[in-house]
Amino acid sequence: MPKPERQVLVCVNARPPGNPKGSCSQGGADALFDGLRDLVRERGLHDRVMVNRTYCLKHCSRGPVVAVQPDNVWYAGVGTTDLEEICTAHLEQGRPVERLLTPDIPWE
Amino acid sequence: MPKPERQVLVCVNARPPGNPKGSCSQGGADALFDGLRDLVRERGLHDRVMVNRTYCLKHCSRGPVVAVQPDNVWYAGVGTTDLEEICTAHLEQGRPVERLLTPDIPWE
Repeated sequence: MPKPERQVLVCVNARPPGNPKGSCSQGGADALFDGLRDLVRERGLHDRVMVNRTYCLKHCSRGPVVAVQPDNVWYAGVGTTDLEEICTAHLEQGRPVERLLTPDIPWE
Repeated sequence: MPKPERQVLVCVNARPPGNPKGSCSQGGADALFDGLRDLVRERGLHDRVMVNRTYCLKHCSRGPVVAVQPDNVWYAGVGTTDLEEICTAHLEQGRPVERLLTPDIPWE
């Protein structure tokens, strides 16, 4: 400390229902954040992995979006069922979860 | 794209007046975010530097807090008068601004 070994950013941005951009919050990002925060603590990673909520991370149509820094790894369409794998493979073993990587598209 | 060359995280977390932890928002973080977003655009950095607002980055007593990833560089007590230097030295030239670095203290 104080620098985290890894910082996991969970977009929980909300937009009103009907907004054409959608939002990560509508896709379940709040539960995702809660689940990841709890799992990081259960795994004993909370002293070196900081989990933060953010506003828009600019991939709204593919949310919920999660970025892992300083790896600069970006995940899209993340659900609570993906959290165990993200914790085990990426946060514990340093191997990004390939199937969740954001496609190579411009920021929105 | 889609990965930013750098991601600048500005904590704009708010707490009610009188809360003993204080908050970055009370310290002027909203104007800081607006100023940085505008400056990054003016300098033509907006295609490679993503500026995001976040909730609590866990250094509340020393806010406003700004983190620059994937450099894992953390700044504390940042004001709008520091933005030109952060843009020129760090975001354009890759040299972190030493005088603004977060001291080596535990997360709050």
